Amino acid sequence: MSEKKIPYKIYLEESEMPKAWYNLRADMKNKPAPLLNPATLKPMTAEELSGVFCAELVEQELDDTTAFFDIPEDIRNFYKMYRPSPLVRAYCLEEKLNTPAKIYYKFEGNNTSGSHKLNSAIAQAYYAKKQGLKGVTTETGAGQWGTALSMACSYFGLDCKVYMVKCSYEQKPFRREVMRTYGASVTPSPSEETNVGRKILAEHPGTTGSLGCAISEAVEKAVSSEGYRYVLGSVLNQVLLHQSVIGLETKTALDKYNVKPDIIIGCAGGGSNLGGLIAPFMGEKLRGEADYRIIAVEPASCPSLTRGVYAYDFCDTGMVCPLAKMYTLGCDFIPSANHAGGLRYHGMSSTLSQLYDDGLMEAVSVKQTDVFEAAEYFARVEGILPAPESAHAIKATIDEAVKCRETGEDKTIVFGLTGTGYFDMVAYEKFHDNQMNDYIPTDEELKSYAAKLPEIK
Amino acid sequence: MSEKKIPYKIYLEESEMPKAWYNLRADMKNKPAPLLNPATLKPMTAEELSGVFCAELVEQELDDTTAFFDIPEDIRNFYKMYRPSPLVRAYCLEEKLNTPAKIYYKFEGNNTSGSHKLNSAIAQAYYAKKQGLKGVTTETGAGQWGTALSMACSYFGLDCKVYMVKCSYEQKPFRREVMRTYGASVTPSPSEETNVGRKILAEHPGTTGSLGCAISEAVEKAVSSEGYRYVLGSVLNQVLLHQSVIGLETKTALDKYNVKPDIIIGCAGGGSNLGGLIAPFMGEKLRGEADYRIIAVEPASCPSLTRGVYAYDFCDTGMVCPLAKMYTLGCDFIPSANHAGGLRYHGMSSTLSQLYDDGLMEAVSVKQTDVFEAAEYFARVEGILPAPESAHAIKATIDEAVKCRETGEDKTIVFGLTGTGYFDMVAYEKFHDNQMNDYIPTDEELKSYAAKLPEIK
Repeated sequence: MSEKKIPYKIYLEESEMPKAWYNLRADMKNKPAPLLNPATLKPMTAEELSGVFCAELVEQELDDTTAFFDIPEDIRNFYKMYRPSPLVRAYCLEEKLNTPAKIYYKFEGNNTSGSHKLNSAIAQAYYAKKQGLKGVTTETGAGQWGTALSMACSYFGLDCKVYMVKCSYEQKPFRREVMRTYGASVTPSPSEETNVGRKILAEHPGTTGSLGCAISEAVEKAVSSEGYRYVLGSVLNQVLLHQSVIGLETKTALDKYNVKPDIIIGCAGGGSNLGGLIAPFMGEKLRGEADYRIIAVEPASCPSLTRGVYAYDFCDTGMVCPLAKMYTLGCDFIPSANHAGGLRYHGMSSTLSQLYDDGLMEAVSVKQTDVFEAAEYFARVEGILPAPESAHAIKATIDEAVKCRETGEDKTIVFGLTGTGYFDMVAYEKFHDNQMNDYIPTDEELKSYAAKLPEIK
Repeated sequence: MSEKKIPYKIYLEESEMPKAWYNLRADMKNKPAPLLNPATLKPMTAEELSGVFCAELVEQELDDTTAFFDIPEDIRNFYKMYRPSPLVRAYCLEEKLNTPAKIYYKFEGNNTSGSHKLNSAIAQAYYAKKQGLKGVTTETGAGQWGTALSMACSYFGLDCKVYMVKCSYEQKPFRREVMRTYGASVTPSPSEETNVGRKILAEHPGTTGSLGCAISEAVEKAVSSEGYRYVLGSVLNQVLLHQSVIGLETKTALDKYNVKPDIIIGCAGGGSNLGGLIAPFMGEKLRGEADYRIIAVEPASCPSLTRGVYAYDFCDTGMVCPLAKMYTLGCDFIPSANHAGGLRYHGMSSTLSQLYDDGLMEAVSVKQTDVFEAAEYFARVEGILPAPESAHAIKATIDEAVKCRETGEDKTIVFGLTGTGYFDMVAYEKFHDNQMNDYIPTDEELKSYAAKLPEIK
């Protein structure tokens, strides 16, 4: 089949947008390990989880056999406000790199939250509303998830309470202000509002917070407030399910032009973007219908896949959450203060962890200054200023495209451009002013965190 | 003809994108008055202008008879990186307002410069490159134009020197940092780098600058530097020409669905967005082929059309630029420091001024707090956080849609959503904290500025 002339941007028609999310786990032979109750070390039941999460989200969380979940019409209508997102052919980047590789990126940044996080935020808000809840609580680090959830809650008239990692709260007043525009309340974490926050503040008076700690606060607030549940923007199976809309659109767009990717690349923090982007492709791979190289890109300063341990661990610092089996650095691990972007979670989605352990995907880690160099290069060549997170995927893509130049292979590379960097200019400024370094944890450090992992067979 | 089902977003195919810009002046019976040489008070010749502007841009500036100018291929390729921009059907806004009106907006904010300014920036950079120049100089107020020009210059490898109004430079460090990411040098204005800057600083030591003053500095720098020319992001005929791409795409998209607008609404500072959006519609109106209500929306704090004088005036505070006949508040006029958004230029495009004087379009002014209220409302309902400038058009659109609700008329309204507000969160914060007021200049103030206008027949 010959390729049709590919436009710079492929937009699907509304009618071509996915009507169901794809649940990758249904096609996995080795299912991801279940969440465990930290008290009993038994798998969490739906009943236990429903104190924390909305009932329908619990169903999605636990179901590893149903391949497709219909996307409710209200959510599809919301999606139409900012989706389908474009699949961009990076002609300018290819030319500049002088590579025979063909590069595409799925751009999820063209919405006010500035990233793909909105895809799951609107779904989680929808089910909360449907269940008759008053509101939801969550944590946010870089601020993208909090912004997305604020928008989603505003749409459905839900109260939204965000615990924002304190250093981000202070460094990113504008992110906070966007959330406020959407009516959310934003509290710097750790705070005096929760037991776990007070405990952490007492033990570490000067702490600027961490994602794991903000999660603990948000969960405590949800379970102790009438009519509230907790929602999370990554890591969970339900989030990967909702984010499959990214991969489904990508696949439909490529299929329209008879394009078959060789390599699929995504940045990976908790795994929400990568899991969503690769979902239908990994599905084909699992079913033996096609083969792809799939590459997770993580920061060298927070290398859960490339240097972590595959074991049960707490999802949060306060150890109030269930245990998940995942590649982890240990729930106390906090990346160097010099680390500027997101992707700072200590663990990785159980689903992706299992796929990685089964050798179905690869992982690489990249250094921070290399990431910002790639980000600036991309901004100048392709005209989009990327989020630091997304720039991890850009860096790995450029590396692969340069290899193609050297070997003369015209591979097709698809990567996820998860968001824009408009609220990350402090980090760009650091980069411009040579104030950024590449601190990488030592083996000894990682060992000391790994030694504290709970012992569970 | 019946309307086809209208999607939330209408995207044109690449092949449907305009291949030529439309020069509205060609269809005007009363041509806009020519620029005058301030020394001789005679119309500026091409030769005189070519010391300041690139040669081909001078041709475009002076040509009021050629209806279409081909868009060079390099520019069309750049346009493909972020255009066509979507024409959005505001279904959610219509529903929320409970209005029978049908509302569309042309959204120009989905690019890293965050506004429509990029449409002309890339054209001006292209002609500068073609002429073999080293670089260009310009001014920027809110920062959108400077960002757009930085991106355009980076694409063509041109040096870019931006004079940024000092109060913006200090309030918007992130805008500055985006320009730096694209390799531009940014100087707060007034500066010690130019004669006019030093003069203004000597006379007003504490000044935080103005757009008119930054223009003077940029022009002086261009004419005194070998291989440099000056470029401007609004007001000029050439800019309106390039911005016609907005209106041409809008018209093509509407025509595809057999939609005929009744009212077209745009915010107006110097006139670049409004002039571009309305171009093909006004053309039809001038040729007697169709009729539309066309509404310019300006800030009550800087009301050049609604309360200004139609007269020759200087384009800049330093009086180094040619004189233009326009609706003006006087070149010394500076809006209240409390005024948060852009649209702070003292005059209005000569073309739009003539059309307004001929009764071919209307103008309204809106108060700042009403604008931000409309902005927040829109952000929550349509999911896009608008630039304060764009929110002027939103406010006027909501007013018209509410009138339709009252009369039961199902008018079709199209407005220009020129950009996003991600770099305007300080202004949003002021609004949330009730730190914003609605200062409107008094008649006496405006009279005192008008009294200083040059006396030219």
